[in-house]
Amino acid sequence: MPRRDRRVLVDQTTLDDAGVFAFGRGTALVQTIDFFTPILDDPYDFGQVAAANAVSDVFAMGGTPLTALAVLCAPERGLPEGTVREVLRGGQDKMGEAGASVVGGHSVRDPELKFGYSVTGVVERRRMLTNAAARPGDRLFLTKPLGTGVLSTALKRQLLDAAGLKRLTRSMATLNRRAAEAAVEFGARAATDVTGFGLLGHGSQLADASGVTLRLRPAPGWFLPRVLERVREGVAPGGLTSNRQFYGPMVDEGDVDDALRQALYDPQTSGGLLVAMPAKRAAAFQKALVRARVWHVEVGEAAPRAARSVVLERA
Amino acid sequence: MPRRDRRVLVDQTTLDDAGVFAFGRGTALVQTIDFFTPILDDPYDFGQVAAANAVSDVFAMGGTPLTALAVLCAPERGLPEGTVREVLRGGQDKMGEAGASVVGGHSVRDPELKFGYSVTGVVERRRMLTNAAARPGDRLFLTKPLGTGVLSTALKRQLLDAAGLKRLTRSMATLNRRAAEAAVEFGARAATDVTGFGLLGHGSQLADASGVTLRLRPAPGWFLPRVLERVREGVAPGGLTSNRQFYGPMVDEGDVDDALRQALYDPQTSGGLLVAMPAKRAAAFQKALVRARVWHVEVGEAAPRAARSVVLERA
Repeated sequence: MPRRDRRVLVDQTTLDDAGVFAFGRGTALVQTIDFFTPILDDPYDFGQVAAANAVSDVFAMGGTPLTALAVLCAPERGLPEGTVREVLRGGQDKMGEAGASVVGGHSVRDPELKFGYSVTGVVERRRMLTNAAARPGDRLFLTKPLGTGVLSTALKRQLLDAAGLKRLTRSMATLNRRAAEAAVEFGARAATDVTGFGLLGHGSQLADASGVTLRLRPAPGWFLPRVLERVREGVAPGGLTSNRQFYGPMVDEGDVDDALRQALYDPQTSGGLLVAMPAKRAAAFQKALVRARVWHVEVGEAAPRAARSVVLERA
Repeated sequence: MPRRDRRVLVDQTTLDDAGVFAFGRGTALVQTIDFFTPILDDPYDFGQVAAANAVSDVFAMGGTPLTALAVLCAPERGLPEGTVREVLRGGQDKMGEAGASVVGGHSVRDPELKFGYSVTGVVERRRMLTNAAARPGDRLFLTKPLGTGVLSTALKRQLLDAAGLKRLTRSMATLNRRAAEAAVEFGARAATDVTGFGLLGHGSQLADASGVTLRLRPAPGWFLPRVLERVREGVAPGGLTSNRQFYGPMVDEGDVDDALRQALYDPQTSGGLLVAMPAKRAAAFQKALVRARVWHVEVGEAAPRAARSVVLERA
């Protein structure tokens, strides 16, 4: 193994959202890559979600996206005409909205469509948001509703109506840009985006990295419409079960409603940010989110470290 | 479509080796992504070649690699134990040799193993090597022998002996770093790395972008051992045929030996650089390559633009 370059500030050995490499005066490059198989039937929407999801790690570190390289795996034949073009167009449009220039990419033949991006952003080093700096007393905010995994599973089973699909698509295609800008502006201490490990998985990581315990008071309002109903009906992605197996021991689930506690392990695609904000800045931060029309909810606070990483309490 | 960011100096609309984005005082980021299915049975060697191949585009632009993100597609089961670990180790070691820090990556389940990297480097803007600046009179050099496509096909058909495999592996795992450093040091006017489109494909692109015609005098010494024999026996990858179909009309093949002219279309994996060097610097450049122990051969010169992009002449 070569000696680690001192310019590497964050790499894959941590569980942070992206790699960070010191470059330029007081700045650093923030880099991330993510791609996956279609979770939506509409190719344009899928491209948008893949782009919003990939760029999210840059926002979650407090960075500004600069460039993106497309990653495309696609079959030679068998897709409806124009599918790949629409996927790319959706991605390109969303990257434009995020302020990132698509400067290249790579495609390979593959029996299964997969799409995403490698994204590079820049961050002011002293304003960087890691998952390691939350402190007791910080108030915790979530900036998108949960349940995209449950609803994607419902979609596959044809249990999602048109209005539900529209709501799901809009949530996943929404950039974390404005939420992140407000978090940086008001001096958030830590942030992470809620993705495959769900709120309790990413929350546990943030708690462990920061040496605190998160006290959360879950409520039905944290979820997209019908998510808790579907969970009660037994609709759950495989990742929900494996997240609960892995992160369950780090969580004190208390006597919270069973569907609610299960749903908190739901893996998210293009989920929102979990932000730890110093208490005295919390009100101003919330006002800024309202002004920027960012969905958000206060989910609890950071407390001195206890036995478990996360404690659930009755709201 | 969003307006193009003025910081984008090179993007996917050109046929250059990588995207280039102005960043920092007089510098720019050079970015590229490449990954593919194994072409060698040994997983460590495959990892090395995938890394050398991915980082090559940064060298081909005159850049210095900084960071890499791994791209891994792998089946859940069915691979010999330790395969993925060895692939990653080979890649990591080669990236270390290239001076790049692996700061992250993404893996997905896939029936077929695929591996590579997204790589970011930095380049001094005034010393950047594009494919668009060759001028009549420039002398042309190639910095790795040709024929990796033909020999990979021979390998699949069990027509490659142990010595041949070793030679092929070593060539593909060799970084273009020293060749590129010498090219930048002696003021090369243009460069490209020779990859999937073969010498005549990438040569045509360089000729067209520069508005010149390349006059090449092919010789058996340009190739890895046994490549021309194999071509005479009919061993050729599919890409050789399609390259000849596509680029053939841009090439005046003259009365050059048939196996020789065919082999010039061979698609390369982790091929060498094609460098256009002002004539008065050519001797010093060659001396530097000798000193740095870089295999190289002079392949011809750039001439005023004629009807075809490339003209083959008898040596």
